Amino acid sequence: MRAKSASCILMTASTERKNRALLAIADALQANCAQILAENQKDLDAGAQAGLSASLLDRLALSEARIDGMAQGVREVAALPDPVGVVLSETRRPNGLRIQKVSTPLGVLGIIFEARPNVTSDAAALCLKSGNAVILRGGKEAIRSNIAISDVMRAALREVGLPQDCIQLVEDTSRESATALMRLNAYVDVLIPRGGAGLIRSVVENATVPVIETGVGNCHIYVDKDADPAMAAEITFNAKTSRVSVCNAAESLLVHADIAETVLPLIKARLDEKHTELRGDERAQAILPGIVPATDADWGTEYLDYILSIKVVDSLEDAIAHIRTYSSGHSECIVTENAEAAERFLNAVDSAAVYHNASTRFTDGGEFGFGAEIGISTQKLHARGPLGLPQLTSIKYKVYGNGQVR
Amino acid sequence: MRAKSASCILMTASTERKNRALLAIADALQANCAQILAENQKDLDAGAQAGLSASLLDRLALSEARIDGMAQGVREVAALPDPVGVVLSETRRPNGLRIQKVSTPLGVLGIIFEARPNVTSDAAALCLKSGNAVILRGGKEAIRSNIAISDVMRAALREVGLPQDCIQLVEDTSRESATALMRLNAYVDVLIPRGGAGLIRSVVENATVPVIETGVGNCHIYVDKDADPAMAAEITFNAKTSRVSVCNAAESLLVHADIAETVLPLIKARLDEKHTELRGDERAQAILPGIVPATDADWGTEYLDYILSIKVVDSLEDAIAHIRTYSSGHSECIVTENAEAAERFLNAVDSAAVYHNASTRFTDGGEFGFGAEIGISTQKLHARGPLGLPQLTSIKYKVYGNGQVR
Repeated sequence: MRAKSASCILMTASTERKNRALLAIADALQANCAQILAENQKDLDAGAQAGLSASLLDRLALSEARIDGMAQGVREVAALPDPVGVVLSETRRPNGLRIQKVSTPLGVLGIIFEARPNVTSDAAALCLKSGNAVILRGGKEAIRSNIAISDVMRAALREVGLPQDCIQLVEDTSRESATALMRLNAYVDVLIPRGGAGLIRSVVENATVPVIETGVGNCHIYVDKDADPAMAAEITFNAKTSRVSVCNAAESLLVHADIAETVLPLIKARLDEKHTELRGDERAQAILPGIVPATDADWGTEYLDYILSIKVVDSLEDAIAHIRTYSSGHSECIVTENAEAAERFLNAVDSAAVYHNASTRFTDGGEFGFGAEIGISTQKLHARGPLGLPQLTSIKYKVYGNGQVR
Repeated sequence: MRAKSASCILMTASTERKNRALLAIADALQANCAQILAENQKDLDAGAQAGLSASLLDRLALSEARIDGMAQGVREVAALPDPVGVVLSETRRPNGLRIQKVSTPLGVLGIIFEARPNVTSDAAALCLKSGNAVILRGGKEAIRSNIAISDVMRAALREVGLPQDCIQLVEDTSRESATALMRLNAYVDVLIPRGGAGLIRSVVENATVPVIETGVGNCHIYVDKDADPAMAAEITFNAKTSRVSVCNAAESLLVHADIAETVLPLIKARLDEKHTELRGDERAQAILPGIVPATDADWGTEYLDYILSIKVVDSLEDAIAHIRTYSSGHSECIVTENAEAAERFLNAVDSAAVYHNASTRFTDGGEFGFGAEIGISTQKLHARGPLGLPQLTSIKYKVYGNGQVR
């Protein structure tokens, strides 16, 4: 209720005032660095004692440099254009009514996330700039860090005269608190889960509040018969290995039979540099003896690791059909010199981003020129692909009359 | 699964082919009029036996004229611009990537609706034109009519060489079939419930598939202190009584204290012409002696009847606060000659359509110039207000490179 009430004020706040709040938050994060790091250390100690993995502890850990990065991120959001109040279209009807379609905040956003405490300030900054109050619900591993960051941000809001409840953190990290947040339809307008496949599935299954599903990426590279072999090898190498833990990394390679004998050895040579495990169907195994046999489960798996599944296909249409069956709808690429084949692939593959001769790793708010993103939507309702500031808005129709009745 | 498979073909079907299918459907509806009416008569007989109300039987009843109207509606959809394949924006990135944002079909839509069999052809036509396969799940009262209409439409699809499964009707009208449809995330992309508040609540609560919520309208007219009294009376009269059973009808009147004594008697005189029951707070009762005392429950009630609740407020801000508390976010109007007050109201009231000096009855796809609509969205995710063809699409990013890696 406090978030809803704060959102009513934030909804009509001027760009200047929101930016002042963002800059105050950035300054406050740096000014309170020591305190945030002290709380983060308690999380790290508790995590070590609880036996968290090294990679989880790494995601949890803050440092002065990371806090500077968080502050810098908030300042970059302040510098982006205000997505609210944009007149998207205007029409005049025959009866004289003037109808403006104008962007508005969504209202109150719920963000459910896992171990990274930097999400607390990243998400809060994007929500604030887009005029949305936010209720943050992070994981228990980062709770002390999150409370410290949230306290600092709320104090900065008070300082510039905006309601502190524009940013709230749920301090109860039980499963019940997450479920309750997912069902607060009267107070929360949209939920955005940020995290692994398990978290996202749980939100989709339990929420009654509308959800923007993010993140799972079983991305494909299809090497067409008319591909440039060297380009195919470079794009596959980049899409698979430049950062294996992210959702826009490639997980599966489809190769046209006509070019497989030429291109697969080139690709393997490149991937061997990073000791990537290849799992192939029988035809791929015949060309690359000794690779791991792929099972049906491989086609649907998002490895997030130095592993790539490989299948030889007989046609562009077979590649499209395979992708339709197994893709999570995130990002797919065709490598080909044939523009017609490329256009068929781009039109027929139903994913958020479809690439011709470029790495799937570009599916990212920054790379798309959005300035910042709160996640990558893999659903088709509301917003698809990188979620920048405009994707955190809704619209309203402002209708101007002079007494019209129907 | 059949819908998903059909949607893959429909997704890339040309405008010409989709229009050919729509015209074939329109012709077939008229050509098979007798057969549809015969099945409708069976529904009417069963409904009368089951003791359905006269108004429900009226909504259920088809006639040659109604079927002509349905066919005409389908032809009008054929005449609308194709919402698919529109390049919404195009950017070139510094690395040479060209990124096109293009409208695409949503995929498979599930429409859950109640007694009106004309929804079957209306919804199917809009879905077909927007490249979406549709699974229709109507109420049991209209099942024979719906099957007849759906069979006719599917035959027309076959005739023009499109998969008949672009349009499917769930013949099982049990509660279980609706719930199953609501949870088919692997095959259904979006659900749109069309019907009363109970149906919509049930879908929101039970669905795991993303939902576009439609329809409930607790709409307000606020008569500002600077209103033209005659205009206030005309707009209130129109918004309340021109059609009481629809979601854009006004249910509640707020009047500024400074003008209440002047304007309330004028409004009452107009509403008395249609024997409208007025339910007022104490201050309204003092001005209009003998009207029904309003209770707190009145402020949140969508009467859909010749009843209007009336409250006297002390300020524009009090009116805005009342609307924030009780509105369903559909349509609200301020009547005032003061442009500043109007702009404050239009910005601060968070509803799909906000009106200055015009009746809330204009919230309608046809009145907005959208040509046709599948409902009025009262949620903020994806689409808000009248849902025309563009609101039945998603987007994808088509990215053109020449070997870019990250």
